[in-house]
Amino acid sequence: MLPKPHIVNLPVYQPGKPIEDVKRELGLSEVIKLASNENPFGCSPRVQAVLEEEIANISLYPDGSAVELAGALAEYHHVNSDQIIFGCGSDEIIALIARAFFLPGDESVMADQTFSVYKSNADIEGAKSIEVPLKDGVHDLEGMLQAVGPKTKIVWICNPNNPTGTIVQDSELTSFLDRVPEQVLVVLDEAYAEYVADPAYSNGISMLEKYPNLVVLRTFSKIYGLASLRIGYGVGQPDVIKLINQVREPFNTSRFAQVAAKASLADQEFVAVCKARNLEGIRYLNEQLDRLGLEYFPAHGNFIMVNVKTKATEMFQSLLRLGIIVRAGFPVYPDHIRVTVGSAEQNAKFISALEQVLLK
Amino acid sequence: MLPKPHIVNLPVYQPGKPIEDVKRELGLSEVIKLASNENPFGCSPRVQAVLEEEIANISLYPDGSAVELAGALAEYHHVNSDQIIFGCGSDEIIALIARAFFLPGDESVMADQTFSVYKSNADIEGAKSIEVPLKDGVHDLEGMLQAVGPKTKIVWICNPNNPTGTIVQDSELTSFLDRVPEQVLVVLDEAYAEYVADPAYSNGISMLEKYPNLVVLRTFSKIYGLASLRIGYGVGQPDVIKLINQVREPFNTSRFAQVAAKASLADQEFVAVCKARNLEGIRYLNEQLDRLGLEYFPAHGNFIMVNVKTKATEMFQSLLRLGIIVRAGFPVYPDHIRVTVGSAEQNAKFISALEQVLLK
Repeated sequence: MLPKPHIVNLPVYQPGKPIEDVKRELGLSEVIKLASNENPFGCSPRVQAVLEEEIANISLYPDGSAVELAGALAEYHHVNSDQIIFGCGSDEIIALIARAFFLPGDESVMADQTFSVYKSNADIEGAKSIEVPLKDGVHDLEGMLQAVGPKTKIVWICNPNNPTGTIVQDSELTSFLDRVPEQVLVVLDEAYAEYVADPAYSNGISMLEKYPNLVVLRTFSKIYGLASLRIGYGVGQPDVIKLINQVREPFNTSRFAQVAAKASLADQEFVAVCKARNLEGIRYLNEQLDRLGLEYFPAHGNFIMVNVKTKATEMFQSLLRLGIIVRAGFPVYPDHIRVTVGSAEQNAKFISALEQVLLK
Repeated sequence: MLPKPHIVNLPVYQPGKPIEDVKRELGLSEVIKLASNENPFGCSPRVQAVLEEEIANISLYPDGSAVELAGALAEYHHVNSDQIIFGCGSDEIIALIARAFFLPGDESVMADQTFSVYKSNADIEGAKSIEVPLKDGVHDLEGMLQAVGPKTKIVWICNPNNPTGTIVQDSELTSFLDRVPEQVLVVLDEAYAEYVADPAYSNGISMLEKYPNLVVLRTFSKIYGLASLRIGYGVGQPDVIKLINQVREPFNTSRFAQVAAKASLADQEFVAVCKARNLEGIRYLNEQLDRLGLEYFPAHGNFIMVNVKTKATEMFQSLLRLGIIVRAGFPVYPDHIRVTVGSAEQNAKFISALEQVLLK
């Protein structure tokens, strides 16, 4: 068997340990997972009813184009249905974009510490990743613009950036989009957009009309709390969306995901409550981290990246033994952990565990 | 924006009309869909309970490796967990295999009328499809072997074949696998395997030990009745499965799909009942088609391909007006329709509608 030569040495996803195993091995009665930026408040209470209704249709294929959901989202975002493409999470949209656009030898530009799926998909296609260092945890859009060359097919901007949680200023983004060559596709990943309260944050979807080379990614896995169901979407001009659709398998989202997403979208009250509680959580964590004398990047999503002033992988293990799972192992920030903003109770338990480790 | 040049003219999936729209437009009170080979008997009654339990976890990411389901399937099939890969339906596994193996200019060999996803994925990767004519609706394995050349990366065998419903004999398959060059990956798509009662049908999974270049595809969308949930799997040697895993997004199956599949697998009684009812349905349809003087291919899956002795797309429209949706538009068989074997009542209604059209 002869696979593509450039995929042979790619890493394979290593699954994390199930929480039940962690509990048993460490003799813990409670484990709090603050590692995957899931919504600690679950999802809209409206979802349960539509899921139960949908169980009757379990043996039927989904609507491959998710017409009803596309219509609802189009109305919500003031775009047309043919400007939206759905994926099995927004990570599938990233994979589809890579598959539609990259030829071996192409280049794409991204931050040096950002969502890993951009690079992994460029690797699969044999495209080169130009990684531009973040500046104080923030995308260096000027540096990224300078990195754009004749071989550049795509620029990936994660806003807020995962894992640092920082945002780019509206004015900087506009200035970047005004100057990036129009044949370069700009993918603006706004997985955490609904959490952002900063007025300097731009809604990428509102910029689509002006910049036809822009595609914005959103997801129902974060503030909408539907991570288990795997549904995200991309919004762009119809011609770009059509190209991505050409490499999409028809039935890539489930009936459950489609109805749950539609019900969730209709419950913006739930979204507002989650956003407010998340902001309270960030405020609390900022105060407590200040008290502990720890630095952190300004958090705009539902997670915060903290400099723990020690090897982060060791801090990860210490916190794990106290029943708190965070994320560590970021090559550019080996002394930082990324922590999801949890419920008030979870945040307090995290701070307490962190303090306990630091005082040892 | 510069997509891969070879994707630009690929067709985009055209969604079928929702049943409710068909009803309204044609003034019908009942519409029976026998077009997608869904299970007319739904799914195992055990599924509902595990889904309801899983609603509590809706905001959590699934286990990216589906460890529990992989363990259950490994035991069921007498293989190891690292020999199994899951996809968002087995069509995603096809896409992943194409993405992992094809470079532009590669070739793959397939039947001239088979599951369209093999060719569409080869097209996306810029690989050439050598389409070998079916013989009486059956894969011509000798012809396919002769079509294998130095550029051939993959041979696709759909068994039972969609849309003809025919199978290849065990002895022919073994003879093919004995002689196909070992560097050629053979993908044996057994989406309908659980329906087959013919003793000359081989279980591809039992052949994996002898043929390391074989990958077998199965799905929970057909006899298990979980089409809405999007979960299928591939089984092969660990080194091949690892290569396919290298191009897989980690969270490509949902929590609901994983628990439903595990519960379904445990209920082989439901599977046996569906298989028996399907065989009864095939027997009934054969008798009735004989009575109507229509020829058909021997049906081994849960569908039957019938020569309606007229333009199949016109027959499709005539049946639609009577409230029966079938599949037509197969380039190699322009006068054949493909009909899913439904419940006894649905089958009788189909025959009645077909007779009504033929007598016009």
